[in-house]
Amino acid sequence: MKKTDLRSLDALFRPQSVAVIGASRKRFQIGHEIVRNLVFGGFTGPVYPVNPKAKVVHSMLCFPKVSAIPGPVDLAIITVPAPLVLPAAKDCARKGVKGLVVITAGFGEIGGEGTVLQNELVALCKKHGIRMIGPNCMGILNTAVEFAMNSSFAAATPTRGGAAFLSQSGALGEAILTDARSLGIGVSMFASVGNRADVSPCDLLDYWDEDPNTEQILMYLEAFGEPERFMDAARRISPRKPILVVKSGRSAQGARAAVSHTGSLAGSEAAVDSLLNQCGVLRVDTMKDLFALASAVQTGKRPKGKRVAIVTNAGGPAILATDACIANGLEIPELSAATRKKLEKGIPPEASSVNPVDLIASADAARFDLALGATIADPNIDMVLAIFVSPIMIDAAAVAEVFAKHAAATEKPLLACLLGKSHSERASDILREKGVPNYRFPEEAAFSLANMYKLQKLRTRENKAAPQYRVRKSKARAALDTAIAEGRTMLNGLELNDLFTAYGIPLVPSRIVSTREQALRAARSLGFPMVAKVEAEDIVHKSDRGGVIVGIRNREELLDAYDRLEDIFGEECPDMSLLLQAMRSDGVETFFGAATDPQFGRMVAFGLGGVHVEVFKDVVFRLHPLTATDAREMVEGIRAKAMLEGARGKPPVSQDELVDTLLRLSRMLTDFPEIAELDINPFLAGYQGKDSCALDVRVRLEVK
Amino acid sequence: MKKTDLRSLDALFRPQSVAVIGASRKRFQIGHEIVRNLVFGGFTGPVYPVNPKAKVVHSMLCFPKVSAIPGPVDLAIITVPAPLVLPAAKDCARKGVKGLVVITAGFGEIGGEGTVLQNELVALCKKHGIRMIGPNCMGILNTAVEFAMNSSFAAATPTRGGAAFLSQSGALGEAILTDARSLGIGVSMFASVGNRADVSPCDLLDYWDEDPNTEQILMYLEAFGEPERFMDAARRISPRKPILVVKSGRSAQGARAAVSHTGSLAGSEAAVDSLLNQCGVLRVDTMKDLFALASAVQTGKRPKGKRVAIVTNAGGPAILATDACIANGLEIPELSAATRKKLEKGIPPEASSVNPVDLIASADAARFDLALGATIADPNIDMVLAIFVSPIMIDAAAVAEVFAKHAAATEKPLLACLLGKSHSERASDILREKGVPNYRFPEEAAFSLANMYKLQKLRTRENKAAPQYRVRKSKARAALDTAIAEGRTMLNGLELNDLFTAYGIPLVPSRIVSTREQALRAARSLGFPMVAKVEAEDIVHKSDRGGVIVGIRNREELLDAYDRLEDIFGEECPDMSLLLQAMRSDGVETFFGAATDPQFGRMVAFGLGGVHVEVFKDVVFRLHPLTATDAREMVEGIRAKAMLEGARGKPPVSQDELVDTLLRLSRMLTDFPEIAELDINPFLAGYQGKDSCALDVRVRLEVK
Repeated sequence: MKKTDLRSLDALFRPQSVAVIGASRKRFQIGHEIVRNLVFGGFTGPVYPVNPKAKVVHSMLCFPKVSAIPGPVDLAIITVPAPLVLPAAKDCARKGVKGLVVITAGFGEIGGEGTVLQNELVALCKKHGIRMIGPNCMGILNTAVEFAMNSSFAAATPTRGGAAFLSQSGALGEAILTDARSLGIGVSMFASVGNRADVSPCDLLDYWDEDPNTEQILMYLEAFGEPERFMDAARRISPRKPILVVKSGRSAQGARAAVSHTGSLAGSEAAVDSLLNQCGVLRVDTMKDLFALASAVQTGKRPKGKRVAIVTNAGGPAILATDACIANGLEIPELSAATRKKLEKGIPPEASSVNPVDLIASADAARFDLALGATIADPNIDMVLAIFVSPIMIDAAAVAEVFAKHAAATEKPLLACLLGKSHSERASDILREKGVPNYRFPEEAAFSLANMYKLQKLRTRENKAAPQYRVRKSKARAALDTAIAEGRTMLNGLELNDLFTAYGIPLVPSRIVSTREQALRAARSLGFPMVAKVEAEDIVHKSDRGGVIVGIRNREELLDAYDRLEDIFGEECPDMSLLLQAMRSDGVETFFGAATDPQFGRMVAFGLGGVHVEVFKDVVFRLHPLTATDAREMVEGIRAKAMLEGARGKPPVSQDELVDTLLRLSRMLTDFPEIAELDINPFLAGYQGKDSCALDVRVRLEVK
Repeated sequence: MKKTDLRSLDALFRPQSVAVIGASRKRFQIGHEIVRNLVFGGFTGPVYPVNPKAKVVHSMLCFPKVSAIPGPVDLAIITVPAPLVLPAAKDCARKGVKGLVVITAGFGEIGGEGTVLQNELVALCKKHGIRMIGPNCMGILNTAVEFAMNSSFAAATPTRGGAAFLSQSGALGEAILTDARSLGIGVSMFASVGNRADVSPCDLLDYWDEDPNTEQILMYLEAFGEPERFMDAARRISPRKPILVVKSGRSAQGARAAVSHTGSLAGSEAAVDSLLNQCGVLRVDTMKDLFALASAVQTGKRPKGKRVAIVTNAGGPAILATDACIANGLEIPELSAATRKKLEKGIPPEASSVNPVDLIASADAARFDLALGATIADPNIDMVLAIFVSPIMIDAAAVAEVFAKHAAATEKPLLACLLGKSHSERASDILREKGVPNYRFPEEAAFSLANMYKLQKLRTRENKAAPQYRVRKSKARAALDTAIAEGRTMLNGLELNDLFTAYGIPLVPSRIVSTREQALRAARSLGFPMVAKVEAEDIVHKSDRGGVIVGIRNREELLDAYDRLEDIFGEECPDMSLLLQAMRSDGVETFFGAATDPQFGRMVAFGLGGVHVEVFKDVVFRLHPLTATDAREMVEGIRAKAMLEGARGKPPVSQDELVDTLLRLSRMLTDFPEIAELDINPFLAGYQGKDSCALDVRVRLEVK
């Protein structure tokens, strides 16, 4: 997206004048509330109510239509019924309006004529260079001092701050603004994007990247519109500004609801998660988690590692916090000897100087001051969780001031958890005023610390490039061309062999034979033990029908096997061939795959083979093309990673080799866009990296 | 526990008169706040401040010691420093006080002389029939009209209601009372039990079972004191009154913190979870989840199934709720045709009559009334989640009244989720007043519905008894006696064979042979293929050293194997024996085990064999003895259950047979308390239940 395009969004978010089409005299009508919000929201330019049936709205003269307004109009908010929207928009175009927010529903989301109407609206905007938010939305706002503009009908107005918020659901937008205010999350801009007929989440990512007031970007999405563009933008922006996303429709039924709700298709969850991971975006499960994390991210602190110190005046909440930290992948390390010494000088003997540092109920501000100073300074510690259960005899406000002092003085994240009642309302106010995130439950605070760490890891992924492999592309090209020329979408054995060996992925040694003599000759080069499979494209469930014989140990058994296969399949395949393979079992069966997602394009999968992929679904996905970092994360990301490291007394396999295989596959996909699906199942990863090879492969082409 | 014992707790929770030892004139001193809480909490009997250095406390005459009080004293709250506690308690005993609450810390929790002091205190109580709460606690309270008594120093006082609350952490107790009030959870009694030197969670379970005001029992525990008694009490009580528990110390480090905090040992997590499941108790992860569930349970509604209808005026929150319901095991089923017809008559065409029922933003109280009436009446629906995002033009209070009306009129649980701001504060108040649980986020409401269903399932477990198996106990007894007589704790092959076959658990056919002739003879009865293992107790890592040879297919190979094993082990075992086994592989490898937990006693485990138990830890535990229901749940509870049902084109195995094997093992454990550990790994569950047998077993005895 070019810079000039971005500036076009200024008509929406930084207008000099706004018209409200459908302005109403009645309170609690949308057309009234928007006028009211503009006025009370401190918009400094003129606001023009437009309504042919009213003379005055909110003490302002009303205009019959936009083109009747004397001065220029940058932005028009349209709230009139659906059939009147297009005429109103046309009038805006005549007037030279460059931004439209269409609140009205009844467009793409209801299908049929709604979609027709929406398309006409989009065509009009395109033609006149107008940018449009909506239709079917609850408006937009900007809190910047010089551009203060609340063109929404939300009842809650947020406080100024660094979070730009996008909601695909108008209803959640209302809830978001309410909660942001009460949870102390400051907002820079807000957009309820509705049907996203023109302005999309990708546009806003870019726009907010450039907005000096925006420090983090929060999104509630039901569907990705342009996954490739989103990924590209997020990859660029996430190192600078954290991007947090709630993407709903996780469950199949949730996704079904999303379809009927937004008229858009939800992506497969594996794809969504991998996409977001790969581009540095943290997806959280619930709106609640989003808010909890946003208030922590708002501090601008970034944890350097995952080691947490807990400083508390009560044991119980510290135990709950410890449990939650560990469960979410954080560490509660030992404090350094120096820190413990410092602590022991200032705390009573019943208190604990080991992490969690329990200052006991008598701890006052001075004791917290000492303990927080000591633990924050500890080089073993990356983050601090300060817990205070307000005892009646302690000045809670003074303790809160100490929390705030230390939080302000360190680069390490410090989150607070205030429990209990006495005096602590003032304490909570102090923490909110001074921007110290404060959680009601210790587990919530721990979870936010874990998410901060996760986000930081995602944002600072190095993304090492894949090596430049030497491959024999022309050999592979020839193999594919043969299949294409013969009108096949599935590659045959010879073609598969050429393709994979050209990309440095070894297949198990094999021969195709059609006579007993050829079989015995092949056996000399393959060696025993050996596997024999009937080779015929149209026989399905080969192994169920006895078409695969394993463990052939000598020439006699090979001839036996030949006889048996001929007995079973000879009649239906008069010129039956056999595929003979060296039998390999010294290693771990792994799985590599590639598939094409209708929305995101090609994805690469890695997991353990056999039952692990089928029953446990222990598979990691990434979008193609893979970086070296992606591939490493995939190999290290499977749940049963212990199997690669040498479980059950077995030696380890080479993880480097698996990473290498993934990258070679990805290179193959890059070189051949026509490979739509690919399976290596299993790939036998040899112990200590010896004799690894693909035992079974299939490749499906899609030639456009 | 006898009824008479239970009545002894009345001195604590239903006293006629209370003395506060260490009463203070200064506000925010514990000894002052307790007097204050008693007075303002509406205690109807006399309160006696005791303090030799004060004349008057809180306008009441002060006594120098309890024995100087003229009238009878039922309960004494002790807040004096630790060294003065025992003298004060002795004075109470002289006076005939029957209940003590020891607030003072510095006892068992600090070890050493603290433990000595605590033991003396307990002995004194025992001697004089005094019941004691604490030491190291924050007090107790009862909200019953006739026994109103707040002997805590909590700053927050709860409203009257049906939740009895126990906290092992005083600090969390303060937070609990604060949150209960603000979340609308009514409290019947509260006890901060501290070191639990006398009154334990088990005592209180029984006491609260009998309390007519208590409708649910909530506990925060850091350790189980008497697991067997707890289990027994919970099993009895949970069908009548829901028991919800947060047990902290889930992580190893959390458990370590618990040790230092309470001086008690945390049980293994697998044991804790299984214990609670088995006795109908629901364990939740966090205090937050506990409160969310308690407010739902407070309604007294019990879901009959897991089918949820969502009725909403906004799509986004409904999608989030749908996702969360599905993720937590609930269903969002289709509504009946009749319901849809009813709905379609009363909602606009843009609204959705399929579940989630989206009434769109224009929905007012009347539309919600119609939709809730229709969905609640639907026989396909067990629970309802009503979501309302307050739009500016709708009367939110009227909608809340409709929610409350329907909630009151149905036996099906109805939870609400109110989002957004305008007018909705009044709506929230209405829901709180009328006892409709209301959540801030749709996901929280969904999670509470899921927990209600889980709780209901636990509470209504049928617990079918195990069948009475015919076993040959004397044969098994003889096998164990042989080992015991020879001073062995591990059973040998012959003994294992006798033991398992006596209990109807088949072992794979096997023979022990010492010569080649015996081996060939054995082969005739075992049949090929066959496995040969070197048989010698003191050879470890047999298989790593080549001591296990599989796939022996004929006499020659058997003799070959004999030679090879003799080559390897002949020198160190001059009279080497071989264990020959029939080779079985047509089935699924499963795992059965029994082990003794230091705290809970013997537990039984079931899972898939091999890598599944070692890498995935896909194992389900239950405490011995197992009911038929326990065993069924174990078999159905493994993650990889699909493997039993016939994954990868294989036939299924017999789950009945696995259940049966578990129950036979449990019977064996009952008959032989000296079996401390037992492993069947693997037990080959034959396809279609054919030829199942244990392939490898070990049993360790612990003779006391």
